[in-house]
Amino acid sequence: MKIQYQELQELVEQHLLDFIPQVNPLSQTLYDAMEYSLTGGGKRLRPVLLLASCQFAGGDPVQALPYACAIEYIHTYSLIHDDLPAMDNDDLRRGRPTNHIKFGADIATLAGDGLLNTAFEAMFKDMFLYFDKPDLLKRRINAAYRIAEGAGVQGMVAGQVSDVESDNGENSSPEMLRHIHLNKTAAMIKGAVSAGLEIGGAPQDMKDHLRKYAEDLGLEFQVVDDILDVTGTAEELGKDPHQDEANGKLTYVSLHGLDGSRKFASQLTRAALAELEGYDEDADFFRDLVVKLEKRTR
Amino acid sequence: MKIQYQELQELVEQHLLDFIPQVNPLSQTLYDAMEYSLTGGGKRLRPVLLLASCQFAGGDPVQALPYACAIEYIHTYSLIHDDLPAMDNDDLRRGRPTNHIKFGADIATLAGDGLLNTAFEAMFKDMFLYFDKPDLLKRRINAAYRIAEGAGVQGMVAGQVSDVESDNGENSSPEMLRHIHLNKTAAMIKGAVSAGLEIGGAPQDMKDHLRKYAEDLGLEFQVVDDILDVTGTAEELGKDPHQDEANGKLTYVSLHGLDGSRKFASQLTRAALAELEGYDEDADFFRDLVVKLEKRTR
Repeated sequence: MKIQYQELQELVEQHLLDFIPQVNPLSQTLYDAMEYSLTGGGKRLRPVLLLASCQFAGGDPVQALPYACAIEYIHTYSLIHDDLPAMDNDDLRRGRPTNHIKFGADIATLAGDGLLNTAFEAMFKDMFLYFDKPDLLKRRINAAYRIAEGAGVQGMVAGQVSDVESDNGENSSPEMLRHIHLNKTAAMIKGAVSAGLEIGGAPQDMKDHLRKYAEDLGLEFQVVDDILDVTGTAEELGKDPHQDEANGKLTYVSLHGLDGSRKFASQLTRAALAELEGYDEDADFFRDLVVKLEKRTR
Repeated sequence: MKIQYQELQELVEQHLLDFIPQVNPLSQTLYDAMEYSLTGGGKRLRPVLLLASCQFAGGDPVQALPYACAIEYIHTYSLIHDDLPAMDNDDLRRGRPTNHIKFGADIATLAGDGLLNTAFEAMFKDMFLYFDKPDLLKRRINAAYRIAEGAGVQGMVAGQVSDVESDNGENSSPEMLRHIHLNKTAAMIKGAVSAGLEIGGAPQDMKDHLRKYAEDLGLEFQVVDDILDVTGTAEELGKDPHQDEANGKLTYVSLHGLDGSRKFASQLTRAALAELEGYDEDADFFRDLVVKLEKRTR
């Protein structure tokens, strides 16, 4: 088995709009606004991780597509809402006008709501196909729950709220920083891996190791983001650097400096690799990913 | 069987916060913001309808509580987002400051997102209890799907988008008005009834009649809302009347006048009652409800 990032990413790109219900022609604006942000590119990290985890557990990634697309819908809604004037007030995302610049803040809010709701609709519809296969049905309910858990008030939404609060300087402790990074970023990455493993039918020890791996990977992803805001160029990032500093954001760099941040990123890479020790070259996808994410410049 | 509105409403009130996950103490603000809007009172029409429909089909309403609360979480999120400065910009809801006045537009946006996500988490968690009862499990997946469908881009969110667009005067046709009312209001009411019937194990003909009843009820609810905006007092409504007119909103009254609106409401009552003709006094709950909703003054 050779798990390939690019292959899985292409699979996601090809099917990303397949699970959005056909809307009434009178609701065309809603569809356009959702499509606009979904087709804005990006690494598709979360859906690729979900498909890769399913494949790693011995499952068929194609069968996991509704869940992979659902997690990308959720990720996309979170970006749309995060960019809103009432939140980060960003005009650009991946080099294009943000959703509310293009459609207005009212439609952008609703397009985000629509994407979150659609994620769950897509998963329910997939479950209908397994009504006569109770074991496969249970895996899918478990997968959907893992995604919901990672996205919700014990996960991403909680992280976003604390992120907003830390902007106001209310709490800048290391505990708060970890809470934000674990929830805002790592929870959805963990949700993606967990969901893929559920659908693939992974044994419990694989779930334990890979979930811990995903948490380390998620934390690393965020620490490197914090570093790049200081060291990156506008060209590399597709957005202006130094925004965290300008907004007085609580980041790993603001609390522990650049050197401390780089050390922590290396530590996380080692910890993540350690979780993969018992596995053969089938796990190389996950090994390569965490090493590449530490070295990324965009 | 005697289905009682007040009994079911009390059941909802008692358990409304039961299905919200315990959050990290660092996310207390998020919990507070969700709780604030959930405990703001209201008729609890959608969850009561869900429980009543379950009971009507012969089920135990207590078992339908996670779904009833989920639909109230969704209804509440939609009100929070609808009140936002970027949307209707309302300061008061049921006589209290709206969520964003109390917590800020950023937290209010996220509290809404959290409530929508929590609705689905609550339903998944309930499904875990039925892993060994495949028939009851399938009913619950069907119920959750009906709720998601009513809330999403073929339902409530679509209605909200068209409502926003009609405010801009882009399309004021009778077709657009019907599209808005069917989706913004009737879809969730139909979702509530459908979900309750699924959990209660209703036969197909009952589903057909009651779903049509729910659509008529939902349309009536909205037409009477439109009428009350013109004829109601601030005291009765708990908000200022004449807001639709001031905002140039497309309503049944703006298109067909007060008399035309009252005629349509009566028509809808008769149509809803006709769907219940084959049922004995067990259906009186639904008969009373539609008659009362037509005559309501708040």
